[in-house]
Amino acid sequence: MKKIAVIMGSASDMPVVEKAINTLKEYEIPYEVHVFSAHRTPEACAEFVRGARDNGFGVIVAAAGMAAHLAGAVAANTTLPVIGIPVKGGILDGLDALLATVQMPTGMPVATVAVNGAANAALLAIQILGVTDADIAAKLDAKRAAGKEAVLAKDAEIAAAYNN
Amino acid sequence: MKKIAVIMGSASDMPVVEKAINTLKEYEIPYEVHVFSAHRTPEACAEFVRGARDNGFGVIVAAAGMAAHLAGAVAANTTLPVIGIPVKGGILDGLDALLATVQMPTGMPVATVAVNGAANAALLAIQILGVTDADIAAKLDAKRAAGKEAVLAKDAEIAAAYNN
Amino acid sequence: MKKIAVIMGSASDMPVVEKAINTLKEYEIPYEVHVFSAHRTPEACAEFVRGARDNGFGVIVAAAGMAAHLAGAVAANTTLPVIGIPVKGGILDGLDALLATVQMPTGMPVATVAVNGAANAALLAIQILGVTDADIAAKLDAKRAAGKEAVLAKDAEIAAAYNN
Amino acid sequence: MKKIAVIMGSASDMPVVEKAINTLKEYEIPYEVHVFSAHRTPEACAEFVRGARDNGFGVIVAAAGMAAHLAGAVAANTTLPVIGIPVKGGILDGLDALLATVQMPTGMPVATVAVNGAANAALLAIQILGVTDADIAAKLDAKRAAGKEAVLAKDAEIAAAYNN
Amino acid sequence: MKKIAVIMGSASDMPVVEKAINTLKEYEIPYEVHVFSAHRTPEACAEFVRGARDNGFGVIVAAAGMAAHLAGAVAANTTLPVIGIPVKGGILDGLDALLATVQMPTGMPVATVAVNGAANAALLAIQILGVTDADIAAKLDAKRAAGKEAVLAKDAEIAAAYNN
Amino acid sequence: MKKIAVIMGSASDMPVVEKAINTLKEYEIPYEVHVFSAHRTPEACAEFVRGARDNGFGVIVAAAGMAAHLAGAVAANTTLPVIGIPVKGGILDGLDALLATVQMPTGMPVATVAVNGAANAALLAIQILGVTDADIAAKLDAKRAAGKEAVLAKDAEIAAAYNN
Amino acid sequence: MKKIAVIMGSASDMPVVEKAINTLKEYEIPYEVHVFSAHRTPEACAEFVRGARDNGFGVIVAAAGMAAHLAGAVAANTTLPVIGIPVKGGILDGLDALLATVQMPTGMPVATVAVNGAANAALLAIQILGVTDADIAAKLDAKRAAGKEAVLAKDAEIAAAYNN
Amino acid sequence: MKKIAVIMGSASDMPVVEKAINTLKEYEIPYEVHVFSAHRTPEACAEFVRGARDNGFGVIVAAAGMAAHLAGAVAANTTLPVIGIPVKGGILDGLDALLATVQMPTGMPVATVAVNGAANAALLAIQILGVTDADIAAKLDAKRAAGKEAVLAKDAEIAAAYNN
Repeated sequence: MKKIAVIMGSASDMPVVEKAINTLKEYEIPYEVHVFSAHRTPEACAEFVRGARDNGFGVIVAAAGMAAHLAGAVAANTTLPVIGIPVKGGILDGLDALLATVQMPTGMPVATVAVNGAANAALLAIQILGVTDADIAAKLDAKRAAGKEAVLAKDAEIAAAYNN
Repeated sequence: MKKIAVIMGSASDMPVVEKAINTLKEYEIPYEVHVFSAHRTPEACAEFVRGARDNGFGVIVAAAGMAAHLAGAVAANTTLPVIGIPVKGGILDGLDALLATVQMPTGMPVATVAVNGAANAALLAIQILGVTDADIAAKLDAKRAAGKEAVLAKDAEIAAAYNN
Repeated sequence: MKKIAVIMGSASDMPVVEKAINTLKEYEIPYEVHVFSAHRTPEACAEFVRGARDNGFGVIVAAAGMAAHLAGAVAANTTLPVIGIPVKGGILDGLDALLATVQMPTGMPVATVAVNGAANAALLAIQILGVTDADIAAKLDAKRAAGKEAVLAKDAEIAAAYNN
Repeated sequence: MKKIAVIMGSASDMPVVEKAINTLKEYEIPYEVHVFSAHRTPEACAEFVRGARDNGFGVIVAAAGMAAHLAGAVAANTTLPVIGIPVKGGILDGLDALLATVQMPTGMPVATVAVNGAANAALLAIQILGVTDADIAAKLDAKRAAGKEAVLAKDAEIAAAYNN
Repeated sequence: MKKIAVIMGSASDMPVVEKAINTLKEYEIPYEVHVFSAHRTPEACAEFVRGARDNGFGVIVAAAGMAAHLAGAVAANTTLPVIGIPVKGGILDGLDALLATVQMPTGMPVATVAVNGAANAALLAIQILGVTDADIAAKLDAKRAAGKEAVLAKDAEIAAAYNN
Repeated sequence: MKKIAVIMGSASDMPVVEKAINTLKEYEIPYEVHVFSAHRTPEACAEFVRGARDNGFGVIVAAAGMAAHLAGAVAANTTLPVIGIPVKGGILDGLDALLATVQMPTGMPVATVAVNGAANAALLAIQILGVTDADIAAKLDAKRAAGKEAVLAKDAEIAAAYNN
Repeated sequence: MKKIAVIMGSASDMPVVEKAINTLKEYEIPYEVHVFSAHRTPEACAEFVRGARDNGFGVIVAAAGMAAHLAGAVAANTTLPVIGIPVKGGILDGLDALLATVQMPTGMPVATVAVNGAANAALLAIQILGVTDADIAAKLDAKRAAGKEAVLAKDAEIAAAYNN
Repeated sequence: MKKIAVIMGSASDMPVVEKAINTLKEYEIPYEVHVFSAHRTPEACAEFVRGARDNGFGVIVAAAGMAAHLAGAVAANTTLPVIGIPVKGGILDGLDALLATVQMPTGMPVATVAVNGAANAALLAIQILGVTDADIAAKLDAKRAAGKEAVLAKDAEIAAAYNN
């Protein structure tokens, strides 16, 4: 199975990134975690990303805040799908990171999720692997069905408590 | 090869969506185009999306503006990767569509690209197919290299014209 | 008398929705409360809404946050008046939910109130019933008059304390 | 049948308001049109609104831009449902009018539609009359069904043109 | 000497308005304080404002938040200068109140100060009285000079502490 | 009678400022017009403003855009009332100029009007002179009454054309 | 004399960058112009920037729009002062580029000027050279004095035309 | 060696400014700290700034919030490079100060850093001195290299903890 790389721009992003790691564990997807700064360690970042496809990675997830250049810097060095997680912070409280992540020039897409949306970023990466992996697709469908049941149960509970 | 579905919320989104179609043609990826409205034809939309995996689709691209619900409505009916294109328009000139597209609840990711970023949406879909398709990956790398050469040539041209 | 349906996108919206319920109780209007997710339980939501008119409902109130699709999904399935309550949260602190709720395509209006404006949403629903129900109209006028008296009393109190 | 009042803050709002009038004509709903300024003719406005229920009106639609006070000034003088149309203009290009319209204090709801959303405002007013008028409800359902057919036809047309 | 009227839209605005009252006391300007709601007690508000010039008032200061209609409603009923204090709150955290206060139609100016800028609102009212009152002008100049001395002293203190 | 000074930050602001001049002419108020730049000619600006009260001015109106420092620089040099006109332009299309004009530190109020609100700025200046000048007050009231008549006539005209 | 490097992210930025070049010519400062894309030619960009100090450059000016990563990518590769010009465009019309340029992590400053502020960017670069170059400083002072004279002349002209 | 001046608009800005002072100490750069208000002590500010070049200063750093006029007022009085630190506060939470600092008219650049970016402001000032001072340049390079090592170490630590 392809591995998923999870990169953060600073170790201080770990509390956000942890939700991605937990989702990957939940689905038993192999992964690697790294701290690469687009500004402080651009060479180390580029080197890892350029080798990612050959080293068995299928998707790269990158989390960064403020003038969030990391996901773009990753996308510049690979044609694997890159998922960007804008991290809350900055003057516009994450909207700036979202725009710095999503507004990439033509030819360099970054699949962007919501601010701090690390769980969904990991899930999207898993869905990408699931395109050609029937086992993963089946797990995704099972979790989805369970989520639906939980909401239906909640509705029944609330209806019972409030309606007469 | 997996097909890519391109859905728009209204036929008036065609000028934006056309850039996605052109990119898919350029890479010779099989695709289907549809007009489904999250509000006017929700059943037709859901029916198509629920059958998409079995009908050979690998990725669904959805474009919509204003209170852009389409990509989310698609994501609610499949565990295939869904790519959302926010279409310019609305009070915040596309930022509203971007936020309505990207801020999905946990469990329902939408891979969001820039406002009107249809070419990148298609490219992202192709990158997803390229994770397990070496021919597509090779084509992506070749185009990327050509893009780099074009910028280097432009630099040489401008440097020649302006520097002394 | 027609009933009013109050729907929320997640049980976590209950603290907001409770203000609507309290207003309905205060006016002794019959109501039902439900949890339906536009993304997790779209079929259950659509089924309830499609049957609402026949089941004696006159107005549907829907509360949701973030990429707030619920009110729109409700409006897509009925021609009863639908009132949307944008719930605080998201990058723009509720403005995103407000815009995702109010910017509906032509043909599918959602009567939108302020972010977290659940009491006013319920009051608007009651005013709608009051168009053809003289008892409700009389109650609305009486409460309105009482509110005016309260402000006049406050003015007298403050004028007495501060002016000389 | 109850009448619907359509009020605008300035005669220059007529191009927006006309879409509301056309919708009312299409549904054959009786209506009246007025120009009342919250600042220039507050007494005339208040007098009309206070008498509206007794004069056979069921809903009041109010359109205004900039520091859009009109809908609020109307709501202050009646317990009929009031629908506010924020008119494009102002520094925030209509968002300012939207917020000045929707953010009413508790007890004074204004059912707000999108900026320049006059057609939907009229439709919402008609839906309100349709709560207790089966003929109107039937007309609303018929138009809704026709809208659905139009989108399905458009999808067939586009699928035929683009898919192979 | 002319009096200054200080009006607030709700008694809950008192903590903001108190800074205006303190400034008026500091300059020994006669004033009156009132609670008038543009929506709940529009007639009482209009009656007070229409009589203000004849009752010896020179300036009216009005504080309100959210869809801040109060200052505009005051300006609609007098040709005395009206100063608006937008009160913090609302989705845009006071920017909405600022825009609802400042964007008045031509012919109805509201002299707007910063969000919660009650001290400056009172000072502006005093400056207006000072245009034709030499004693007030002299007091304003004296306070201004004292403020300058305080900053110069602070600079000397910090320069002494930090520079070498 | 006191004179009114109208200052603009750049001669390119003249199309905006002209509306202020026209209003002053309409009311036959004596005025002076100047171009002073807060950054290019700060000394000339300060010298004029410091002498303004002694030279017979009652109010200073200042128009500037972008990082709109002019009104603040004027207010720093006088205790006369200063009215700021934010001029459209800048990244936020005038909102930046509005905030740079209105958010003054305590002790230095600037009476701010809407972006490009030059007519209202002049009118506010005239209202300030009208506090102690009965002739000006009478003119203001007469114009106000004429404005009301114009709207009432417009309402009659539209009601005649549209209602049946 | 040190040279100034002017880099743009795309040849399409030339109309903006030209104003910087013209300013450098006006002051007779040696310069070089380049097109380097942070995403398409990151290696060429890094190589040029790393050698800039040794190759006689004193300041690097970088212009880019959208998710404006260029100035940051330059700053990551040198300790020379880097000046960033955000280029108009993007959803927030240049504000996004401004924030992506200015919000750099600690240790990697980018001296940011206004959106499209290329003339000021060049002037700032010249001021930096002028810190230790008396001839440049003298030229800067002379131009500044000429600018002041131009505004004073404009004031005299306008005062003559409008005042009586 | 040239000195660096650090000016703040109010002593309450000291907690922000202190990070600049600490950076200057770390690099052993001579500096002076001052409190000058653009509005309360404009003459003292202008006098200091006009003499700055002759008194051995090479760069002036200015910090201010709200309608942040200080950096602009400094730039108006010198052709030395001026660095502006927008201080958090105001309705837009520092974005207003950022825009009031960065949007200077042509001819008066202010090198702007991020909101509260005092450490980077000082570092930028040091980089400016480093253009012609090889010792400073060497120190800057050494610190930069140390920063890189710290991130690489963090990556190794996290990779060891999380990867298997």
